[in-house]
Amino acid sequence: MISEIISIGDEILIGQITNTNSVFIAKELNKIGIEVGQITTISDNSKKIIESLNLAKKRSNLVLITGGLGPTKDDLTKHTLCKYFNDILIQNKEVLSHIEDIFLKYVSTPINEKNRAQSLLPSKAKIFKNKYGTASGMCFKRDDVYFISLPGVPFEMKEIFKNEIIPFLKSEFSRETIVHKTILTYGLGESAIAERIESWENSLPKSIKLAYLPNLGRVRLRLSSKGQNEKEINEKINYRIKNLYTILGDIIVGIEDETSIEKKILDLFKNSSKSLSLAESCTGGKIASRIVNVSGASSYFKGGIIPYNNKIKESLLNISKKEINKFSDVSKEVAIAMAIGARKKFNSDFSLAVTGNAGPKKGNNNQPIGKVFIAVSSSDNTFVEEFNFGNHRTRIIERAVNKSFEILLKLLT
Amino acid sequence: MISEIISIGDEILIGQITNTNSVFIAKELNKIGIEVGQITTISDNSKKIIESLNLAKKRSNLVLITGGLGPTKDDLTKHTLCKYFNDILIQNKEVLSHIEDIFLKYVSTPINEKNRAQSLLPSKAKIFKNKYGTASGMCFKRDDVYFISLPGVPFEMKEIFKNEIIPFLKSEFSRETIVHKTILTYGLGESAIAERIESWENSLPKSIKLAYLPNLGRVRLRLSSKGQNEKEINEKINYRIKNLYTILGDIIVGIEDETSIEKKILDLFKNSSKSLSLAESCTGGKIASRIVNVSGASSYFKGGIIPYNNKIKESLLNISKKEINKFSDVSKEVAIAMAIGARKKFNSDFSLAVTGNAGPKKGNNNQPIGKVFIAVSSSDNTFVEEFNFGNHRTRIIERAVNKSFEILLKLLT
Repeated sequence: MISEIISIGDEILIGQITNTNSVFIAKELNKIGIEVGQITTISDNSKKIIESLNLAKKRSNLVLITGGLGPTKDDLTKHTLCKYFNDILIQNKEVLSHIEDIFLKYVSTPINEKNRAQSLLPSKAKIFKNKYGTASGMCFKRDDVYFISLPGVPFEMKEIFKNEIIPFLKSEFSRETIVHKTILTYGLGESAIAERIESWENSLPKSIKLAYLPNLGRVRLRLSSKGQNEKEINEKINYRIKNLYTILGDIIVGIEDETSIEKKILDLFKNSSKSLSLAESCTGGKIASRIVNVSGASSYFKGGIIPYNNKIKESLLNISKKEINKFSDVSKEVAIAMAIGARKKFNSDFSLAVTGNAGPKKGNNNQPIGKVFIAVSSSDNTFVEEFNFGNHRTRIIERAVNKSFEILLKLLT
Repeated sequence: MISEIISIGDEILIGQITNTNSVFIAKELNKIGIEVGQITTISDNSKKIIESLNLAKKRSNLVLITGGLGPTKDDLTKHTLCKYFNDILIQNKEVLSHIEDIFLKYVSTPINEKNRAQSLLPSKAKIFKNKYGTASGMCFKRDDVYFISLPGVPFEMKEIFKNEIIPFLKSEFSRETIVHKTILTYGLGESAIAERIESWENSLPKSIKLAYLPNLGRVRLRLSSKGQNEKEINEKINYRIKNLYTILGDIIVGIEDETSIEKKILDLFKNSSKSLSLAESCTGGKIASRIVNVSGASSYFKGGIIPYNNKIKESLLNISKKEINKFSDVSKEVAIAMAIGARKKFNSDFSLAVTGNAGPKKGNNNQPIGKVFIAVSSSDNTFVEEFNFGNHRTRIIERAVNKSFEILLKLLT
């Protein structure tokens, strides 16, 4: 079975917002064994919507539509679907009372006719309740093709999708299992890797697809396969990965999984009852902000100092002016002093410090743009690593953040 | 004239990455007056690519294709385009020496045959040099439709697009001007706004399109129009906006423009020669990390403290334990004390402090999840504002960050 996603919204076509809804839906569909064959974004335009539905119908068994279900004039999806499926709108009392309830509880302005009209829904469609909003989800069926329309506001859509659509799809379709495993490598370009694994790649069975995903100094290799028997597919892929380790073992960092590196680090710190603090110069708080995005971070993260100005390195991290002048603020010595300073200030078990030149100007130190030092300190040991992350500001920062998480993970495992 | 974008890549269809390339291209095309009618994502599959090219050809004058130009086996775009346009590959000597140069300068591994093969390019296509990589851009033309193929690695694609494709498109097409103006409102839902502006909306000429964009407590209203005379279009839209102010003046925050709020704040601080420091509790460094993303931030940003643990509020920001115990760490009083503490520690002209409950657990204070206090301090004045940002952790953090930037902007204007 094959599905596709149609996102409706001028804001995507003019580059005003990123289509994150389709990323979420594609990922969730893959998890339950439904392949996504195409993602299409079109404008809020009835003719265009109908044209796209007609094309999608020929290609797919399931069409997910997002957007255009709001209460205002520019929202055309509901009326267009009614026209397409020769349906009429009727009032859904349950949805009406849900909408009234939302206004009573959460909205400071009184309910109006436009809000109430959100309970007028196609008579033939199966309706899915929108817990967080007033635009219901709906499902039509024609010639064995399912069309499911969902609101475009991401957090409303996600809630309906997880709690209503997934169980519905599981009950309606017999599905295969899709398995993706992604191997993280570091230090070689994709063509160099391709050369090393050529005979391994050529020996892959047709049922396993290999993809190369190069990004910011790393190449990820994804193996994908699908079938009825999940255990068999996993074994088949794992066997190939085992062989891959014998060829690329020196550059493989690990297998990517659903758990983010932030979550893994949280779990490791929690289990060991250790605490962490940060001193972030060039990364300016980005490591900390990714740490606190994960709930439970307060169990191990004591906080951080962002000494963006050298005087702050002196006053808050107790680094001597002499040391900074001698070695410059972007140096091994200052990175180490920052880590030790943070660990002592926060009284934490571990600390991590980053200092570097993110450019575009060179600054007062003599280091080239892209040079970054990352130091880690504990009461037992303090060490520092030196990197060169290229010459593009936001990429340098991003790579320094990623590398810091890698170092923290290694430290704890 | 109308264009469309075809993104090639299984990684988008399985939800492994977000299609940010199409956002960038759509925005850039809009700027030079080329409308994007559709964005399509398909898999790395020759049949699918050809099917999509055939459909796109019927709808558009210009088709932008990204992805599938790498040196490895899973990259099929170049060969598929050759087949589609009955072309053959020939070696491009200039591109070959560029590739050899890249390997000499930036890559630690020696160049191999796969890398050299990147200089084999379709004989009939116009070739665009990829400054940062080995996959060239190329343009084919058939029946007055232009097909431009670009690499999928975002920073390589962006460089070619800005420096090669934009000038090329400007020279090849006579284009209209597209104007979008987006008005930011705060405090009313979209249906309440729609009700208030109903007669204004109904009086809009057909040539102006209105869109409602609700998101995280704000509704943005976008007015779009296009035509030959840029000045005329701007005047037409500005006239409508002026009228809108008389109806919605109380909830309009301003007009959205290309300059990010971070950049505006940087410019304002720079012009006034003032400095800033931060104390971020629940936002955990996210405000700082957005500040330092903009180059030049060091001219005003002295740094920040992330006192994620209450003891750190005491030791680093000089807030008394008594005060925290009396008012709790999520309180007006502690927000104010944090702001004053940061300003003094960093010796900055201004400081901003955030403390709040991001959930999912309530913590030791008595405040509900979503409660956030933001305080600003200068030597003249210190004030605090109280907010309730809902009950979803990352949304609470995101809204607190956005609000902090709004407050900083207001402070300086």
